[in-house]
Amino acid sequence: MICDNLGIATDGNLTFAGRDAVELAKKYGTPLYLMDEEKIRYNCRTYVDAMKKYFGENALPLYASKANSFKQIYRIVNEEGMGVDVVSAGEICTAVSAGFPMEKVYFHGNNKTDADIEYAIKNGVGYFVADNIDEINAIDEISGMHNVCSKILIRITPGIDPHTYDAVATGKVDSKFGSAIETGAAMEITRLAISKKNISLYGFHCHVGSQVFDSDVFFKSSDVMLGFIAETERILGFKTKELNLGGGYGVRYVETDPVIDIADNIAQVARVVKEKCDTLGIDVPAIRMEPGRSIVADSGLTLYTVGMVKQIPEYRNYVSVDGGMTDNPRYALYNSLYTVFLANKMQEECDFLCSVVGRCCECGDIIQESVKLPSSVKRGDIAAVLTTGAYNYSMASNYNRVPRPPIVMLTEDDEYVAVRRETLEDIIANDL
Amino acid sequence: MICDNLGIATDGNLTFAGRDAVELAKKYGTPLYLMDEEKIRYNCRTYVDAMKKYFGENALPLYASKANSFKQIYRIVNEEGMGVDVVSAGEICTAVSAGFPMEKVYFHGNNKTDADIEYAIKNGVGYFVADNIDEINAIDEISGMHNVCSKILIRITPGIDPHTYDAVATGKVDSKFGSAIETGAAMEITRLAISKKNISLYGFHCHVGSQVFDSDVFFKSSDVMLGFIAETERILGFKTKELNLGGGYGVRYVETDPVIDIADNIAQVARVVKEKCDTLGIDVPAIRMEPGRSIVADSGLTLYTVGMVKQIPEYRNYVSVDGGMTDNPRYALYNSLYTVFLANKMQEECDFLCSVVGRCCECGDIIQESVKLPSSVKRGDIAAVLTTGAYNYSMASNYNRVPRPPIVMLTEDDEYVAVRRETLEDIIANDL
Repeated sequence: MICDNLGIATDGNLTFAGRDAVELAKKYGTPLYLMDEEKIRYNCRTYVDAMKKYFGENALPLYASKANSFKQIYRIVNEEGMGVDVVSAGEICTAVSAGFPMEKVYFHGNNKTDADIEYAIKNGVGYFVADNIDEINAIDEISGMHNVCSKILIRITPGIDPHTYDAVATGKVDSKFGSAIETGAAMEITRLAISKKNISLYGFHCHVGSQVFDSDVFFKSSDVMLGFIAETERILGFKTKELNLGGGYGVRYVETDPVIDIADNIAQVARVVKEKCDTLGIDVPAIRMEPGRSIVADSGLTLYTVGMVKQIPEYRNYVSVDGGMTDNPRYALYNSLYTVFLANKMQEECDFLCSVVGRCCECGDIIQESVKLPSSVKRGDIAAVLTTGAYNYSMASNYNRVPRPPIVMLTEDDEYVAVRRETLEDIIANDL
Repeated sequence: MICDNLGIATDGNLTFAGRDAVELAKKYGTPLYLMDEEKIRYNCRTYVDAMKKYFGENALPLYASKANSFKQIYRIVNEEGMGVDVVSAGEICTAVSAGFPMEKVYFHGNNKTDADIEYAIKNGVGYFVADNIDEINAIDEISGMHNVCSKILIRITPGIDPHTYDAVATGKVDSKFGSAIETGAAMEITRLAISKKNISLYGFHCHVGSQVFDSDVFFKSSDVMLGFIAETERILGFKTKELNLGGGYGVRYVETDPVIDIADNIAQVARVVKEKCDTLGIDVPAIRMEPGRSIVADSGLTLYTVGMVKQIPEYRNYVSVDGGMTDNPRYALYNSLYTVFLANKMQEECDFLCSVVGRCCECGDIIQESVKLPSSVKRGDIAAVLTTGAYNYSMASNYNRVPRPPIVMLTEDDEYVAVRRETLEDIIANDL
């Protein structure tokens, strides 16, 4: 099994977080997002403990809440001592309504509108991670109008290609995000930020890519960012308080994905950071990291009911389920890999090669190609797609006017609905 | 201009449906979907008139409402005498709540759940377009439980590759949709449907692909389908009442897209159908076609406010807007082409080559690459993306917890909100 919260019960049903997945499908209906609260907490603690241990007490991991944003997740990560990264007024609103301590909130994004900036100020968001010159000017102006001095980090592109694919490679010079060191833009925007009256520059942020398995990427970005920090100290006399290294550690979607030891990786990055600061003769800034996927992905699992099984001899077999790109658009967007099981037939041999497809009227509505399921697969079986805790609910749509599934949170000895299932009334609620 | 509802006012602002787009952006805020009601009605009438003229009074175009589904669109297409194609309980619910005559509704999809089938029966949906054997069995069984005999068409894959790209090519043998003639599956499922007590088979449906510019595709699918119809008559003694040829006529997203004369195309298809029926010695069935995109795409336009302009020398220029893959995921999904203007600077020379990108924290959040905008482009300008009436609102998500824009409908001398803007309260409404 790709994660230790998966198992098989004696009757052959899949278990998740120690619970019978088929029973949960019956109880709550399908499609259904399940989340394992203990696993979320474990993942949070891994980051919090390792960062404190290796970077010191002033280090803080921030949950990148775009991975999965709903009220309860902010409560959980807060209880585990994390900050959060938000990317919109919608995520700020969710954090506020969950009672999250707003001073530990970092507001990201490449296009904060004036209304967003004002909303963040009014709600006491701790830091803006300013992306560009337009934003520096807007944050300064709007902060002035509200008589506040806003704390900011500046997003820098260190010019590193994380060897992941285009759609999630964000640290290259050619990026919609941040200002490049290489072109001089990073120094220019830093100079501008320092000159602003209503802004207090705390430091810098970078994010190199997603689904990264190679520690090397964080070594390189630390190296480049600390070099830049030393330069800003030398040229502008600016003392950096915080360095935010972003997120990106990969998770296991399929058996062939590597296992990462997060704590060990953080220990190695800390060693590189300290050595580099030593060499450069600068203080070690307070470090932030921003795990999103690696906090929630393996805490999630989606259950579906099989609708049809279609064998097209000499072509392909299709198994369709009652969800699809509406609740998990990642195959349609990136051809992402997932592991699929039949939750009610875990002990049967899997020799039926098929495409598992969704219910949308669209050929691209595919959950996964080349899946092997038991050959007895039939209408009414329960399919489980693993590792769906990140970028599934958060990216879900109502395409085909399909309601979004609920999120049911599993605890050690209980379960509760964290997000309600959408109803048909919800679907038409804004239609006049 | 790619469509005749676009123009330039004397002050250099873009006009859409005769209205100043910049004024509308100010009045309703951005991002904003605009729709041109007269254009929708014109497109409906083109199909209704041409189909009645060339196929006879028993022909009927059905609006493929997955292209853009909200209450008011069902009212409009009903007033223009069309039927509709729906693909979920959500679309049925929307049609019902808009007072659409349900006997003119066709229920499509490759994975109708038992609950969907029951919901359709209870709401008096006219026809099921049954996709597969599992569905035939389920429709028969559930119809029996409700003491009704359900009218159905069977979806057939004629084995034609429409030369469009994979994600929208649905008429090939290797498809999640329908039953292939070539493999014998189509005859088998027809035989099964005829044998069922609570099903009344009316005919057959096919859909070859989307964004089709070549009339030839419809000639071929008609030819193949009528050949099959003659075979079912010969072998099973079954008289086909209806032949549904699906949708797929292309629309103009960019200047290089061809212009299609829909009425002329329908005239040509009608000629092919009549000749083929004559040759085969069968009656001409009542014809259905299912335009979606070609009814609403050029009736729509999206307005955004520019947030940042970033020049990365020797790499690329970026212009970001306050929407993106949340309101228009088609570039992220298919690299779809769109035409982008600065609505408030229509008379300026466009010599600033840039990528127009969205606000989401994701590199793949791109509206369009290689756009030429005026070099004066700056924060606060209004960007217009054309031809967004299809598969934009319907595919929109709340990724990054970004609320979905409203749809404002423009009439000849008035305007009204057809779908309200989502609020932050809506975003957290289902969070517990």
